[in-house]
Amino acid sequence: MEEEVENILQKGGELFHPGLSVDCVIFGFHDNQLKVLLLKMKHADKWALPGGFVYKEEEVEHAAVRVLQSRTGLGNIFLRQFHTFGSPSRSDRKLNRELLVSLDLEAHENHWFLQRFITVGYYALVNFSSAVPRPDATSEACAWWDLQDMPPLAMDHNHILQQALETLRKQLNDQPVGYNLLPEKFTMPELQRLYETILGKQLDRRNFQRKMLGYGILDRLEERKRGVAHKAPYLYSFNKEKYAAALQDGLQQGW
Amino acid sequence: MEEEVENILQKGGELFHPGLSVDCVIFGFHDNQLKVLLLKMKHADKWALPGGFVYKEEEVEHAAVRVLQSRTGLGNIFLRQFHTFGSPSRSDRKLNRELLVSLDLEAHENHWFLQRFITVGYYALVNFSSAVPRPDATSEACAWWDLQDMPPLAMDHNHILQQALETLRKQLNDQPVGYNLLPEKFTMPELQRLYETILGKQLDRRNFQRKMLGYGILDRLEERKRGVAHKAPYLYSFNKEKYAAALQDGLQQGW
Repeated sequence: MEEEVENILQKGGELFHPGLSVDCVIFGFHDNQLKVLLLKMKHADKWALPGGFVYKEEEVEHAAVRVLQSRTGLGNIFLRQFHTFGSPSRSDRKLNRELLVSLDLEAHENHWFLQRFITVGYYALVNFSSAVPRPDATSEACAWWDLQDMPPLAMDHNHILQQALETLRKQLNDQPVGYNLLPEKFTMPELQRLYETILGKQLDRRNFQRKMLGYGILDRLEERKRGVAHKAPYLYSFNKEKYAAALQDGLQQGW
Repeated sequence: MEEEVENILQKGGELFHPGLSVDCVIFGFHDNQLKVLLLKMKHADKWALPGGFVYKEEEVEHAAVRVLQSRTGLGNIFLRQFHTFGSPSRSDRKLNRELLVSLDLEAHENHWFLQRFITVGYYALVNFSSAVPRPDATSEACAWWDLQDMPPLAMDHNHILQQALETLRKQLNDQPVGYNLLPEKFTMPELQRLYETILGKQLDRRNFQRKMLGYGILDRLEERKRGVAHKAPYLYSFNKEKYAAALQDGLQQGW
């Protein structure tokens, strides 16, 4: 593991597009909490978003898919680029120098790892129970954190997380959300709770149901939720075809 | 001018963040047409979006502001990052090599200008009548083109333009648009025409007016449009304070 890191840090200048990284905000939903997958860095007392570098001839988006896959074991999931962060002050060269020094690597001024990095931000919505968090070579832990209760994050990662959340909230107006985040069969109150958790506010039950059904992306199943004593609510599932179309073309509201 | 280009191409490797550019989709509105500002490249028979490189210690967004200012003479205008384009195939190394050769510069394999470039896309909404199009050093012309009638564009610039337009259309649901694109006083039909032009579809007159007034971002003026024979329509202007708040916080609809 240590060897792998050393190898990458020494050869990174030849392998990767210079001064560029990707960072992924990976959201999951569990116990009515929005969760974010974070890495605990080995050489610093901070947590960080899962990120990585872009190979010289690699699609930038593919680098994000790689990161996602290697941190969660999941493929083929909802992933969206949301913003590129380009402030010269965002690279923490001190932190990066410490990593080099901790590995007995020479930290000379022109080392590729000590230059300024621009980072392209992606967010992903994953199935909490299918994801298997795995640390990367520079981390000692990989874990879900409640959005309500986050540890201190390295560099500008808190800013990146906030922007991802803001984008997700705005995209709730255009795009359906819930697939991946909910089990295959769910009740309307469960779907409403997901929306309320993402938006951080209460929604009116009747309006929510009317609007959500109006999108035509839900199938009402012929079964009701079990184990509920009184007036068991209907179960729904996403209509995959209509859901995919809405992801592509938007929810066809607005102007 | 030629000298300036030569100088930049020779020293670019020292001056700029490697492998990174910005491209600006600059929209204007005139005669009920959405217009885009394009440059005619000197060394190629194609038009291109105004773009530029990012200095080593410059904010990426500031590079876009520079491009905008130097191509239009305008400062302090609506500018939004919308997407970063990161396909390895997007850089047209052949075109770049031709430019070097046309200037008698040595086009060796490792020349900074012949490497892969990632580009950060920004779109801007500007006042058509205040903008003074000015070509850059590698261009022979800078002009407005009707979105309906665009010339062939270099590299992936048509793709970039389409993505900008799609983003603008989506953002019409969250953010007010019109300031900068319309004269200070305008009628409701003029505002509707702007929205229809951006969206590429007809809107219902009554719904448009109801929804637009509902946002509370318009002031109805005590004057009516002059020179109209019969039933002159009211004039409106944007309420700057409320408009700015809506730009910041969104139009407060949706969920």
